[in-house]
Amino acid sequence: MTNRARNRAPRSPRLSSALVLDIAQLDASALREQFPILDRLAYLNAGTDGPLPDAAVRAAAQELRREAENGRTHLHFERRKELSRSLRTAYASILGCAAEDIALTTCTSEGLALVLEGLSLAPGDEILTSDEEHPGLLGALAAARQLRGVRVRQAPWTEIAAAVGPRTRLVACSHVSWMTGRHAPAALAALDVPVLLDGAQGVGAVPTDVRALRCAAYAGAGQKWLCGPDGTGMLYVSPELRSELAVGRRSYANFAPAPAGAAVDLQSLALHEDARRLDTYLLSAEVLAAALAAVEVLRAAGWDAIHTRARLLAAQLAEELSARGRELAVASPREREGATLVSFASADPVAERERLAARGVLLRDIPGRPWLRASVGAWNDEGDLARLLEALES
Amino acid sequence: MTNRARNRAPRSPRLSSALVLDIAQLDASALREQFPILDRLAYLNAGTDGPLPDAAVRAAAQELRREAENGRTHLHFERRKELSRSLRTAYASILGCAAEDIALTTCTSEGLALVLEGLSLAPGDEILTSDEEHPGLLGALAAARQLRGVRVRQAPWTEIAAAVGPRTRLVACSHVSWMTGRHAPAALAALDVPVLLDGAQGVGAVPTDVRALRCAAYAGAGQKWLCGPDGTGMLYVSPELRSELAVGRRSYANFAPAPAGAAVDLQSLALHEDARRLDTYLLSAEVLAAALAAVEVLRAAGWDAIHTRARLLAAQLAEELSARGRELAVASPREREGATLVSFASADPVAERERLAARGVLLRDIPGRPWLRASVGAWNDEGDLARLLEALES
Repeated sequence: MTNRARNRAPRSPRLSSALVLDIAQLDASALREQFPILDRLAYLNAGTDGPLPDAAVRAAAQELRREAENGRTHLHFERRKELSRSLRTAYASILGCAAEDIALTTCTSEGLALVLEGLSLAPGDEILTSDEEHPGLLGALAAARQLRGVRVRQAPWTEIAAAVGPRTRLVACSHVSWMTGRHAPAALAALDVPVLLDGAQGVGAVPTDVRALRCAAYAGAGQKWLCGPDGTGMLYVSPELRSELAVGRRSYANFAPAPAGAAVDLQSLALHEDARRLDTYLLSAEVLAAALAAVEVLRAAGWDAIHTRARLLAAQLAEELSARGRELAVASPREREGATLVSFASADPVAERERLAARGVLLRDIPGRPWLRASVGAWNDEGDLARLLEALES
Repeated sequence: MTNRARNRAPRSPRLSSALVLDIAQLDASALREQFPILDRLAYLNAGTDGPLPDAAVRAAAQELRREAENGRTHLHFERRKELSRSLRTAYASILGCAAEDIALTTCTSEGLALVLEGLSLAPGDEILTSDEEHPGLLGALAAARQLRGVRVRQAPWTEIAAAVGPRTRLVACSHVSWMTGRHAPAALAALDVPVLLDGAQGVGAVPTDVRALRCAAYAGAGQKWLCGPDGTGMLYVSPELRSELAVGRRSYANFAPAPAGAAVDLQSLALHEDARRLDTYLLSAEVLAAALAAVEVLRAAGWDAIHTRARLLAAQLAEELSARGRELAVASPREREGATLVSFASADPVAERERLAARGVLLRDIPGRPWLRASVGAWNDEGDLARLLEALES
C-alpha cells in the first residue's frame, strides 16, 4: 500500500517522521540507537547486508573471549549446541514453523543448493524459475542443468505460476525479487508441484509465513534483513519434502547422537530425523551468538511494527522519487505494495552509487539493469530518505 | 624420534624445560603469553580445537566493529576478498603448494566431502580407507556408499597402501590418526591411485608438504593445530584432480568475475579456473581476520621450531606416562615418531577426563576406545605435562 493510498504521505522535501511512527507504533530512535552506523550514514543496503547492531558485535566478542580464556572443550560444544537451539527456535518463530523444520546454514545459496542437490531429479525433468533471479539460485540451477541434465525454464516474473508444465518437477524462484522488491505471485501457493522459495529478500524484510506461502522449502539469509553476521542463514523444509531429500554431505552436526562412549563406525552413523540432518557443517559460538543478538533487537521492537514501518518508509521513498521525476523500476503502486526495496532509474548506476557513497548514502546498483536499489528497513528514518533525495539532486 | 633416542629425555617427575627449549630454539614463554588460556589451565586439546590466541580475538572484534560502524557494502566485500587472498596464501605456504591450489572451507569435513562428491564414481567402484578414521571422513564415505553405490573397504591402518585392489579408485584416509597420532604409511606416496588425505590432525601439528606426500587432495582444519576460530579450514586439490572434479554447488565465491555492470544469467556463470571454484559459500571478514592472526602467531615463532617443540614435548610425555605404568595406545617408540597426540589407557576415560578437567587439565577421550588423548602443541610446556602427570596420579 502506498502512502498516497492512505492519504498520509508527506510530499514536502523535508519529511516528517511523526506520521509513520504513529502508524508503526515503534520507537524509532530507540531502535536506531542500536545500530552504530546510523549515527553517521544513511544506510540503505540491507538487501546486501543489514546494518550490524552493537549488541551483535558485543555478543561475538564475548563468546570469543570466553573461548580464548576457557578453551574449546566439552563445555564449549554444549554452549554451541545451546546457541544453535536458540537460533533455530528464533528463526522458526519468524517463519511460522516448528524448530524441527529449520536447518541452520551459512547463507541463502547453501539452503537452495541443499534442496536442489537432494531432490531426486532425472535428465529431462524440468525446474521452472523466473527471469529475475539472483546468482545464488542461478548457480544451483546451472549445476543441476550441467551435472544432472535437468531442464531449467525461465518464465516472466508475474507469469511463473501459470507457466507450470507437465514436466515441471519443481518451481524455484524468489519470495521477493532482489531487483525490484516485488513479491512472488500469490498463485504459487495454489500449485500442486513443490515450490522452493529464495527468501534472501523475504524473511526479515516482509512478513513471512511458510504455512501461508505453502512452499515446500524456503531458504533465507541471516545477515541481510535479520541484521546478523556474515555466514548465517536458514532453510525451512516441509516434513514431506525432508523425507524425500538425499543428504549428500554429512558431519557431526547432522548425525544423531551415538550412545555415550560408543565407537563411531561406518555402520553407526545415523542422521537426525529432523532438519538438523541438513545443517551446515559448523556455525561457531560467536556467529550464533551474534545472529541471536541481532534477531533479538528486532524481535524486541516487534515484528509487526518492524514490517509496517519498513513498508511505509519504502512507499514514501517511492512516492518522493516519482514526484521528483525518477522513474521507478516498478511503476504500478499496486505491484509495489509491501515492497521494502525501491529500485529506480539511473543513467549511470555505478558512478551514481559511488557519488552517493561519497555523500554518506549507501545503496547498490543492479548489474545489467539501469537501476539503483535502496533497501529500506525499520531502522531507517525520514532523515535517511531525505538525505538520499538531496544527494540525488545535488 | 623419542627423547630417549636422543638421550636427552628428562625422566624425573619435575620436568626441565631448558632442554627442549634449547632443541627447538623457540621462546616458549613469549609464545605462551599469546594464549590467555595457558595462564590458568593445562590445555592439551588442540586435536579438538586449538587454544585461541588473544590476537585472533582482537582481530575478529576489530572487523566486526568496522562492519558495524562503516556498513557492509562494496568496500566490505573488497576487504573480505583481500583477507581471503591472504589466508589462502598463508595456508598454501604451510602446505607447500600454490595459492591457486587451495580452496577455503569451514572445516576438514567440508573439504573431504567436496572431493568425494565431485569425483566421478560409478556403482561398484571402490574407495579404500582405514580402520582408524574420524566421523568427518566416515560420514562422507557413508554418503558415497548409500547414494552412489560405491564400495567402501576398510584396511588396518598400517596395511592400507598394500591393500589397494583392482577396483580401488581412491584411497581416503588420515594423514595423522586422530586416535593415536600415528602418521599414515609413507608407502601411500608411491601409489598410482589418487590419495585423499584427512589432515585434521596433520596440518599445523606436524610438517606437512603436499608435494612430498604426493596426495591428490588434502583437507585440513583451521581451528585445531592452526589455532584459528571455529569454522575455518582448507582443501588442497592438485591441478590434475581439480580438472576432473564436478562442482555441485556454486555461489558468488566460486564464480569468475563478470564484466562490471553485466547482467548475470544462467549462461554467464563461469567458475574460477583455480581452486576458488571449490571455496565454501562464505567466510566472514571476522573469521578470516581471526584465522590469519592465529596463523601469524605461529608463523612468527617459526614452523620448524613449532613442530620440533611439539614433537619433543609429546615424546617426553609418552616417556613419562610409560615410566609411570600408563599403557600407551602405540607401544612402539618408532611408530610414535613425530606424533603430537599421545593416547594412553584409562579404565574409565569419560570419568577420568572429567576428573582431570576439574583439576584444570583439559584433554579428551576417544569414543569406543579405552583411551584418553593428550594433544601436545608448541604452546604447551613441561609445567602442563607435569600438571597432567600429577593429576593422573592424585
